[in-house]
Parts: sequence; structure tokens; C-alpha cells
Amino acid sequence: MDWKEKIILDVRKAKEASFILSKVTTEEKNMFLNKLIEKIEENREKIIKENQKDVDKCLKRNYSSAFIDRLKIDEKRIDKMIKSIKDVIALPDPVGKKIWETERPNGLKIERIRVPIGVIGIIYESRPDVTIEASILCIKSGNSVILKGGKEAKSTNLILVDIMKSALMETKLPVDSVNIITAGGRKAVKYILKLYQYIDLIIPRGGESLIKTVVENSYIPVIKHYAGVCHTYVDKDANLEMAWKVVLNAKVQRPATCNATETLLVHKEIAEKFLPKMAELFRMHKVEMRGCDETRKIITGIKEATEDDWYTEYLDLIISIKIVNNIEEAIEHINKYGTHHSDAIITENKESAEKFLREIDSAAVYHNASTRFTDGGEFGLGAEIGISTDKIHARGPMGLEELTTYKYVIHGNGQIRE
Amino acid sequence: MDWKEKIILDVRKAKEASFILSKVTTEEKNMFLNKLIEKIEENREKIIKENQKDVDKCLKRNYSSAFIDRLKIDEKRIDKMIKSIKDVIALPDPVGKKIWETERPNGLKIERIRVPIGVIGIIYESRPDVTIEASILCIKSGNSVILKGGKEAKSTNLILVDIMKSALMETKLPVDSVNIITAGGRKAVKYILKLYQYIDLIIPRGGESLIKTVVENSYIPVIKHYAGVCHTYVDKDANLEMAWKVVLNAKVQRPATCNATETLLVHKEIAEKFLPKMAELFRMHKVEMRGCDETRKIITGIKEATEDDWYTEYLDLIISIKIVNNIEEAIEHINKYGTHHSDAIITENKESAEKFLREIDSAAVYHNASTRFTDGGEFGLGAEIGISTDKIHARGPMGLEELTTYKYVIHGNGQIRE
Repeated sequence: MDWKEKIILDVRKAKEASFILSKVTTEEKNMFLNKLIEKIEENREKIIKENQKDVDKCLKRNYSSAFIDRLKIDEKRIDKMIKSIKDVIALPDPVGKKIWETERPNGLKIERIRVPIGVIGIIYESRPDVTIEASILCIKSGNSVILKGGKEAKSTNLILVDIMKSALMETKLPVDSVNIITAGGRKAVKYILKLYQYIDLIIPRGGESLIKTVVENSYIPVIKHYAGVCHTYVDKDANLEMAWKVVLNAKVQRPATCNATETLLVHKEIAEKFLPKMAELFRMHKVEMRGCDETRKIITGIKEATEDDWYTEYLDLIISIKIVNNIEEAIEHINKYGTHHSDAIITENKESAEKFLREIDSAAVYHNASTRFTDGGEFGLGAEIGISTDKIHARGPMGLEELTTYKYVIHGNGQIRE
Repeated sequence: MDWKEKIILDVRKAKEASFILSKVTTEEKNMFLNKLIEKIEENREKIIKENQKDVDKCLKRNYSSAFIDRLKIDEKRIDKMIKSIKDVIALPDPVGKKIWETERPNGLKIERIRVPIGVIGIIYESRPDVTIEASILCIKSGNSVILKGGKEAKSTNLILVDIMKSALMETKLPVDSVNIITAGGRKAVKYILKLYQYIDLIIPRGGESLIKTVVENSYIPVIKHYAGVCHTYVDKDANLEMAWKVVLNAKVQRPATCNATETLLVHKEIAEKFLPKMAELFRMHKVEMRGCDETRKIITGIKEATEDDWYTEYLDLIISIKIVNNIEEAIEHINKYGTHHSDAIITENKESAEKFLREIDSAAVYHNASTRFTDGGEFGLGAEIGISTDKIHARGPMGLEELTTYKYVIHGNGQIRE
């Protein structure tokens, strides 16, 4: 059997498993999740040992420390995995929920019911925490999952999938609910992306080049979780105390996340009052500033922000700063350079706020709050598989509901169309 | 300017128009639609004359009569266009609707609001009725539209777009809300499909090869409206009087539609009682039957149904018939050969009905009714841009709501993340 046949076999089994999974009860799914916690607890040592093999290989090959940090699993990371499984157990099951109903004049009763999507393909980099988190969200929402992770995490992923399969088996769910593709190496990605007869949705998790490869090669619908080039705009009518506090938080509270602010826009009328103290706060927190010409007249000695800077997700203690003539220019800048993720306005002027919230074309738009809140947990939606920067199907935090679709269920008593 | 530059210019203008369109009121959009009716009334003769040019060319080139029938516009077709505009005026505007809200313990007020998608590309064959219908649905839902229609309808499409643009102009909506791409010919399709910076969604309207081209080449999300290989399954516990009536309706009431039944599945225990009279009814209505071996023992003298038949959307007075051993076999057949469109069970047994409705993986599943009801109007949802056979974003009839997305709007008073 060559690698293509192996993959076809795997995705076929995943499709069959998805038909069974779509029928199981919430209790059965939660039983699996509880069993999975038990199995992970039992296998702590083994997981860390397998992970160490992956880590050792990468150390030998001189991978960056950031790469190895994302790859490495220690006791704390295992605690976090278990915590995330517990969170998913606590979430309500969206499957079977009636989201709309009507009775027609001819007596037809029409209902729209949430159902699982089917088979979901996750294409991701060498981050073994995704292996568990993506799988449990897919299964809780009744979908089976095809995992294609980075090769550097192969040993870790194999043991994690093995543990999930044994938890599935012991709780009588189909073992093919979770599948990992290792055959075919990198070539396999493009091949998987053509298998629309078996896979219903692809979610890429990773950097821009991975997402680009997926988008350009997939015949299957893709929901993208792109970078977050997020903005905070400080309007001329801002409460400056609030602005200093919120902008600082949006930048420094956790700079490596997609919802951290990367660009600060400031209305020219308040720039001279607002920026000096902001710069002082940034300096205290070791934030590198890069500014437009006008900004550099107020904050001297900082680097110039180039056209590239406006497009950049730093994921670091760096911020670009631009002074704008009015709110229209701020909106235009955000819609042009942003990634339609999360953007905020700080203002006491209701009209300006409403204009900003309406005209910014982003998944989450904020008035007087930090962009850092874009998160399934913070929104009260529970765990998420990512933050969608797409507009189709799911926008913003993508949780269990967004991992389902719906069907129309129609009850009649012999109606025919005239 | 070469054809690629021309297209870029058009899609850029469409994107700009979409920002304006997303802000206009329902009244403004309806004013445009009313003006459009007026303009079409004024230009009846001109439209028919331009259309005649297209028809004449196709007649010379010996296109099929079915093709020319779809292309041709007469007074009746214009009446139908006007009727469809009136229907869309009457529909509620989904834009701005609050679909969810919550207040978090930290005081953040989070709302999920319906907003337009942006720019929608419609790629279709030589059916000028689509030019109007797709455009008015997109505009009423606040989207601008890029039309790429079959070249045989070029003169007709140009006059229709011209009329729409003048109605837009006279009611002060952006004229670039509707754009037709004629530059580049067939090559343009593949080029348009890469322009994800400007176009947010592609809806192909046409046959399988058109949809295949779109799916295999698009970097932009696509919602497919595939063929309808729909089934009616007559269970062993069916009320036979109802079954005869419903099956006949599902096949013959309008065989050329995607929701007509193409395959009849019959439980073996009632086949001998049910099929003879069914065959008589089909013969009375000139329906060609093709059967499995078991069927042909009961209905003699009919053609054998081949493996290909089970996959075929006849769109004609032809039906394939298969006798199955049990409901499981019926479900398996439908999930394997169907297009996940519309499928029905006829039974008095509630348990069998529930099993069928739950396990059939289709957009619309019916108990004791004709598959012919899958339609936005019949569901009480209003006009539709098509019947989605996809599971992502829209499933089944795709109307105004499905032409929108949502954004999260968050109001705070200085909240920061701890």
C-alpha cells in the first residue's frame, strides 16, 4: 500500500466514524473526555519521554528556542491539557439544538437543527498542545478529526493519538474519530486538501506560509485564522487616563498573542497631550516604538515606521505609532493594513464610537476596552479552536457551535407541491 | 490597460462600494429596487432587442433549444424579473440585526451583529435572469457584486447591468455596487478566483464542470450549489396511498428542478404491493423507469439501472428504482450516491422516521412530504440565491441572511485584561 492509499483508507474510516459520532449522546462524549483525562494522567511519564525524543532531534538540528518552547511538553503543559479537557466537558453540546422553527400554511413543520459538520482536517505546525485541544473540540461537537501536524512533533503526536484512541475504544466510541496522517510526509498536505469527498472542512493552524499553502491548494472549504494586526485608535475626545491604561494593556499584557495591539493611531488634536506620557509608559515596559514623521516630532529618538511596519504583526514588545488627521483616516488605515481581527477606539464621543464600530470591517470592534479580550473564554463562549479572520461560517472566536452546521428537518402528513 | 488591470480596477471599485453599501439604510436599498422596476419597465423593448442579438448568434451556432430557452428573455421573463424584485423589496433586511448579546462580569457588553459579507462574486452560465436576481439579493443584504456570466449572454447582461447602474446612480447608491467582468474572456474566471484581497465569497451558479473549475481554482471561499440527486424512500410501514401521491409529485411536478426526486427506494416487504400501481402512475405521466434486478421482477420490461444511474440527476421524466432490504440500506444508499440535497421517507413508523431524519446527511430531510418543497419561498425564508449543498456557512436555501456575516461589537468603560 503506498502513502496515498494509506491516506485514503484513513479518511474513509474517519468519514464512517463521523456518521456514528453524529449520533452519540453528550454523556457518551463526556465519558470519553473523562477517560482521556484518566489516560493522560496514567501516561504522563510516557508522554514526556516521547516528547523528549522530538525535542532532542530538534536541539541537534539547532531549531530556535521559540520553536522548541512550542514543541516541548512538561508537567505544566500536561496540567494545561487536562484543564482544557475539563473545560470542554463543562461546555454545552450544540448538537441537536433547534435553532429555528416554523409551521407553514400547508401544515409542514420545518425545523433547523444543529448537526456536526462531519470530518474536520486540522493542518498545523509542531505544537502538540493543538493535537489534544483541536481533537477534543471536534469530538465534543460530533465531528471526527484528521490531524496533520508538523513532522518535528511526530513522536509526541503519535503517543497522544494513541492515548485518545484507547480512551475512545474503552468508552465505545469509534476509534477512527481521531486520525493522524504520517504517511507521505510534506507531500501529503497537498494530497489531503483534494479529498473533498471525505473531508468537510480544513482548519489550518500556523503561520502565514502554512495558511497560504492550504488556501491555494484546497478543494475543501477552509476557515482561516490569520495573524492579528490589531489597532487601538485614540480619538480626540478620549479620556486620556483611560487611553494610557488601555493602550498599555493592549500592547504589553501578552504581546505574543494575536489580539495584542500592534499599531497605535492617535488623533492629531490630542497627540501632543497624549503621546509623551504614553511613550514614557512604553519605555518603562521596554516597548520599542516606531513612528510616522509626525509622531517622531513628539517622541524623539525613535525609529521610523515604514510601510511594512503597518502590515506587521510583531507578536513582540514593539509598537508602530501613527498620527491621523481625523477618524476617517483612522478607519481607512485599519481597513487597509489590518487583518480584520480586533480593533478598538478610545473616545467619550458616542457618535465617533458608533461610526468606528460600524465602519471597521473586523471580527471584533471595541469601544473603550483592550483588544486583548478577543477570546472565546473572555466572550463567555468557552474554549475555541482559533480566532477566525474569515467572514464565511465563523468570524472571531470559533468554538463548539462554529464546529457544527445545520439541517432542515421537515415533518409532513403527505404534502405535495401544487 | 490590459484585461488583468481592468479586472483589478473593477474589483477595487466594488470593494470601495461595499464599504458604502454596508452603511446605507433599508429604505435607501428599497428605493433603488423600486427605481430598478421603473427602469426595467421603461426598457422592456431595449432589453428584448439586446437579448435577441445574443439569441441570434446562438441560433446561428446551433446551440441546443434548452440552452436558448434559458438565454431568451421575453415579456413574460421580464414580468418574472419584476416580480422577483418586488419580492426582495418585501423581505426584511438582515443587516444590523442583533443575533446574540451578553454582559460579562467585568462589565463588557458584547453583541453579535449581522453585517454584509462585502464583495460577492457570481460566476454563472448564460442565464440573464441570474444577472438580476443575484444582484438584487446581494445589494439588499448590503454586498456589492461582481458578475461573470456566460459570454453568450453578453449583450443582455450589459444592458441589464447598465440599467442597474443607472438605477443605483439615480437613487444615490454607489454605481460600483454592481460590476460585470467582460475583459479577459474565459481566462478571466481563473484570474478572478485568486483575488481574495477584494472578493469575499464566490457563488458559482451552473453545471458540474463550472463548479469544479471554481472549486479547484479558487483562493476565495466558495459556496457550492451542486446538483440535486434527491431520493424518496418508501418504508415498509408507509401509508401506500400517501406514498403514491407524494412520490409522483416529487418526480413529475417539475422534473427539471434540483429538488425533484431522481431515485425511488422501496422496502422489499412492500415492494410487491406498492410498485405495480406506482409503475402505472409513472407510465400515465410518461416517466421512464430504470430498475434494479429485484424491481425488474415486479415491473417488467423496464431498463436496468446501472451504477451510473444512482449518481445521476436526470432533471427529466426519468426515475431510477431500487428495492432495499431495510432502512439501513436505504440510508447508506442515500448518503453514498446522493448530493446531500433533499431526501424523504414515507412511513407511519415514528421510530423509522426519526432514524432517517437523523442519519441522512442532507440539507433537507423530509418525513411524509415531497422533496419538491426545498425552496426559500416554500420554507418561508423568501427569495434565495440558490440551494447550498455545502455544510459551511449556508446549507439548503441560501437567502438574505446567508448573504451576511456577523461582527462582535464590544462596549466597555476602560476594561483591561488582567
